[in-house]
Amino acid sequence: MQYGTIIRILGLLVSLFSVTMLPPALVSLIYGDGGGLAFVVAFIFTLITGLAFWYPHRQEKADLRAKEGFLIVVLFWTVLATFGSLPFALLDQPQMSITDSLFESFSSLTTTGATVIEGLDFMPKAVLFYRAQLQWLGGMGIIVLAVAILPILGVGGMQLYRAEIPGPVKDSKMTPRIADTAKHLWYIYLSLTVACSFAYWLAGMNLFDAVCHAFSTIAIGGFSNYDANIGHFNSTAVNIICVVFLWISALNFSLHYSAVSGRNIRNYFKDPECKAFFTIQFVLVTICFLVLVKYSVYDSAEVTLDQALFQAVSISATAGFTTTDFSAWPSFLPILLIFSSFIGGCAGSTAGGLKVIRVLLLFIQGKREVDRLIHPKAVYSVKLGERAIPSRVVEAVWGFFAAYAVVFVVIMIGLIGTGLDNITAFSATAAALNNLGPGLGSVAGTYAQVSDAGKWLLMTAMLFGRLEIFSLLVLFSPAFWRS
Amino acid sequence: MQYGTIIRILGLLVSLFSVTMLPPALVSLIYGDGGGLAFVVAFIFTLITGLAFWYPHRQEKADLRAKEGFLIVVLFWTVLATFGSLPFALLDQPQMSITDSLFESFSSLTTTGATVIEGLDFMPKAVLFYRAQLQWLGGMGIIVLAVAILPILGVGGMQLYRAEIPGPVKDSKMTPRIADTAKHLWYIYLSLTVACSFAYWLAGMNLFDAVCHAFSTIAIGGFSNYDANIGHFNSTAVNIICVVFLWISALNFSLHYSAVSGRNIRNYFKDPECKAFFTIQFVLVTICFLVLVKYSVYDSAEVTLDQALFQAVSISATAGFTTTDFSAWPSFLPILLIFSSFIGGCAGSTAGGLKVIRVLLLFIQGKREVDRLIHPKAVYSVKLGERAIPSRVVEAVWGFFAAYAVVFVVIMIGLIGTGLDNITAFSATAAALNNLGPGLGSVAGTYAQVSDAGKWLLMTAMLFGRLEIFSLLVLFSPAFWRS
Ligand SMILES: [K+]
Ligand SMILES: [K+]
Repeated sequence: MQYGTIIRILGLLVSLFSVTMLPPALVSLIYGDGGGLAFVVAFIFTLITGLAFWYPHRQEKADLRAKEGFLIVVLFWTVLATFGSLPFALLDQPQMSITDSLFESFSSLTTTGATVIEGLDFMPKAVLFYRAQLQWLGGMGIIVLAVAILPILGVGGMQLYRAEIPGPVKDSKMTPRIADTAKHLWYIYLSLTVACSFAYWLAGMNLFDAVCHAFSTIAIGGFSNYDANIGHFNSTAVNIICVVFLWISALNFSLHYSAVSGRNIRNYFKDPECKAFFTIQFVLVTICFLVLVKYSVYDSAEVTLDQALFQAVSISATAGFTTTDFSAWPSFLPILLIFSSFIGGCAGSTAGGLKVIRVLLLFIQGKREVDRLIHPKAVYSVKLGERAIPSRVVEAVWGFFAAYAVVFVVIMIGLIGTGLDNITAFSATAAALNNLGPGLGSVAGTYAQVSDAGKWLLMTAMLFGRLEIFSLLVLFSPAFWRS
Repeated sequence: MQYGTIIRILGLLVSLFSVTMLPPALVSLIYGDGGGLAFVVAFIFTLITGLAFWYPHRQEKADLRAKEGFLIVVLFWTVLATFGSLPFALLDQPQMSITDSLFESFSSLTTTGATVIEGLDFMPKAVLFYRAQLQWLGGMGIIVLAVAILPILGVGGMQLYRAEIPGPVKDSKMTPRIADTAKHLWYIYLSLTVACSFAYWLAGMNLFDAVCHAFSTIAIGGFSNYDANIGHFNSTAVNIICVVFLWISALNFSLHYSAVSGRNIRNYFKDPECKAFFTIQFVLVTICFLVLVKYSVYDSAEVTLDQALFQAVSISATAGFTTTDFSAWPSFLPILLIFSSFIGGCAGSTAGGLKVIRVLLLFIQGKREVDRLIHPKAVYSVKLGERAIPSRVVEAVWGFFAAYAVVFVVIMIGLIGTGLDNITAFSATAAALNNLGPGLGSVAGTYAQVSDAGKWLLMTAMLFGRLEIFSLLVLFSPAFWRS
C-alpha cells in the first residue's frame, strides 16, 4: 500500500476543503449572526492539519493500484466529513454533541439530508449556508466518483461505463483523466446550480434561500432553511422548479456532458436508463395522485397533483425534500415511496439508491431466466438497448443487489437493538442507505431523538450507500490488506 | 400444449386425492364428533369430478415438455387445494366462508400453517386431523417437487441437483424416474413420521395428538390441535423432539436417501449446505438466548434455553410452531426471526424460504465480487465445497433472489392497501412467502381478522413461495402460451 502517496493526496484534499469554511464565515459577517468565529477556527485548524499531512509527503507520487483507489475514496468521505463536523461542534448555536456534529456532517456530505438540528428557522444564516454547501460539495464529489472513479474500479457493475479493460490503474494516467473529466462535469454542475438559484429567485425566494436551496436541489440533498422544508414557501412554482431540477440532477451527468459538448442531445431519448427513470416517475406520480384523490386528502385536484408530483419525485429521486407530511399519507403510499427510494436515480447522478440502470439490468435478466425456463435450449444474452452486457457486469450488479440487502438487514436489526420501533428502524435504514433523508415513524422529521449508537449505525449506512457498498466493503476483506 | 395429457394427469391426481378425505371421516366416526358427513360428501364429489376429467383422456399420453411440467406443477397445488377446501366449506363447525376455506386449504397444502380457525381446542377431531394430514400430504408433494421435478425444470438454480443436460423432457422417461424417486423419498418421509409420532407419544401426548403433530412436524407445517400450539403441552421433552425432527426434515432428503440406502452417512458432514444450515441454527439460538437473558424474560437459564432453542429453530426452519408469543420478545428478536425465515431450510426439504444453498451461493459469489475488485486480473470461479458451480446456476439463483424480493414488495404493498398496518403486512407477507405461518402484529396468532382481499394476496404469496417463484411466474409470460 502506497501510504505516502495516499497521505499526500488526502492532505491536499483536506487543505482545499478548509477553504470551503470561509464562505459561511463571510455569510456570518454579512448577516452578523455571530457564528463566524467557529468557521474561522475550523478553517485554520483544517488548513494546518491538511498541510501538515501533505508537506512531508509532497514528493511521493507512486503509481496507484485499485486498492489505493478504494482507500482514497473511503478516506475522502470519512476524513472530510470528520473535519466538516468541526464548525458544528464549535458553534454556540446550535449546541451540538460530537456525535450530532459528525452525524450532520456525514449526512450533508453524503447528500443524505437527515438532520438532527431542530428549529432551523431560527438558526444563524452561516449554519444554514454551511449545511447546504456541504451537500453541494458532496454532490460534486459523487459526480466524479460515479462518472470517473467507480467505472475504473469496477464497483457494482459500473465498469459498464468504462472503455478500458480491467487492470491496475497507473496514477500517471489516471489522475489527468479524472481531473479532465471532473473539470467538465463540475462546469455543468455549477451551471445547473446557477440556473436553479435564478429560477428559485424568480419564483419569489430571497437570494440567500435561492442559493441554499439550489445547492441542496442539484446535490439531491434535501436540506432546507426551514423546519417546514420546501413546504415553507407554499408555492407551486417553487415545487415545479424543484421537481424539474431534481429530474435533471437525477440523470447521468455523462448524458448532460454529451448534450453540452454538442455531440448529441438525442442521447437523452435513446438512453434506456433515462427512459426507465421517467417511466418509473410517471407511474409513481400517477399512483400517488389516484390514491390521494380516492382518500380525498386534499381539497382540489390541482393541490393533489402538486403534492403528488412533488413528493413522489422528491422521495423516489432520493432528495427527501418535503412539502407535506407524506409519512401520514393514507394506505400504502408512505411505504411505496420509501421502497421507490431503493431504485433512486440514474447512475452517474447525485441521486442515491440502487440506481435505475441496475434495477433495469436485474429486470432484464429476470425476464431472461423466465425465457430460459420456457425454452431451455435457446441461448439468451442480456441486452440493454442494442448493447449486449458482459456476464461479469451482470454478476457484479447481482452482487451489489445482495450486498445492499445484507447491509440493510444488519443495520436495521442493529437499529432495533438500540431501541427504535420496527417501522422507524426500517425506514431510517432505507433513508440512510439510499441517501434519502427523512423516514417514517419517529424519524419522519428530524433524527434528534435517535440514540448515539443509532446515529453511528446510520452514518455507516449513509457511507455504505454513497460508496456503493463495495468501495467500503472491500476494506473489510483480509485480502485487501495483504501486500 | 398437450392439454389432454395434462387433464388426464390432473384427473388422476384429484381422484387419488379424494381418498385422503376418508381417514378424517373415519376419525369422525371414532370420536363421534359429527363432522363425518362433510368429508364423505367432499370425497364423493372430488372422486367423481376427478374421474370425469380423467376418463375421456385416459388414452392420451403425449410426451411432455418443460412447459407442460410447469402447468402441471401449478395446477397440482391450485386444483388440489381447491378441492381440499371443500370439507372446510361444508362443515357446520367451524362455519367458514369460501375464502376462509380456500385460505385454510392453501395454507395447509403449501405447509404454510397460517390459520383462520379460532378455538382449535374445541374443534371436531376430524377437522384437526384433516388439517394436519393436508400439511403432511403437501410435504410429500414438496419433497418430490424439490428433489425430482424442479431440478429437471431448472427452477431457481436447482439444476444444480440434476445430472442431465437441459432440454425437453420426454414423458416416457420422466414419469418412471419421478415415480421411482418419489417412492424412495416417501418411504423415508413415512418412516420419519412414524418415528416422530412414537417419540411424541413417549413424551406424553395421546396417540391422536402425537400423529397430528408428527404430520405437521415432518411437513414443517406448524399446525397444532390447540390455540396455544406446542406451548399447550408445556413440556421440554416435546419441544426437543419437535426441534430434532424439524432439523431432520429441514435437510435435503437426498442426503437422507443416500444415508438410508447405505451409501454414505458421512454425506451429512461433508455437505456444505448442511454445515451452513447448522451454523445458522447455532448462531440464531445463541443470539436469542443471550438477548432473552439480558432482558430477563424468563425465570431460569433452563427455561430461557428451552424457549430460545425452540422458537429460533421453529421460525428459522419455517415451521411456525410456537411455545410462547415470540412476537412479544424484546428488542430485535421478532424481526431477526422473521428475517431468518427468508433463509429457511435446505433445498429438497419440506422447509420454505430462499433455501440455505441459495443463500450460501449468493454469499460465496458476493465474496468473489470483493476479491475481483481487489485483484481485477485474477479469474475466480464460484465453488461450493470442491465443486465449481456453472455460471448458469449462479445466474438462476440471482434471478430467484430478485424475483423473491419483487414478489415480496408487491404483495406487501397490496396488503397495506387492504388496510393492514405496515408491520403486520411486512410479517404476513414474509410468513406467507416463506411458508412460515405466524407473523407479527395482528397476525401473530390467527389470520381471521385479515380481509378477504388480504387473504387472497396471502394465498398467492404462499403459492409463489412453495412453487419457488418461477414455476408460477413463467405462466405470466406471453412466450409460455405461444405454441
Ligand atoms: K437526499
Ligand atoms: K410452516
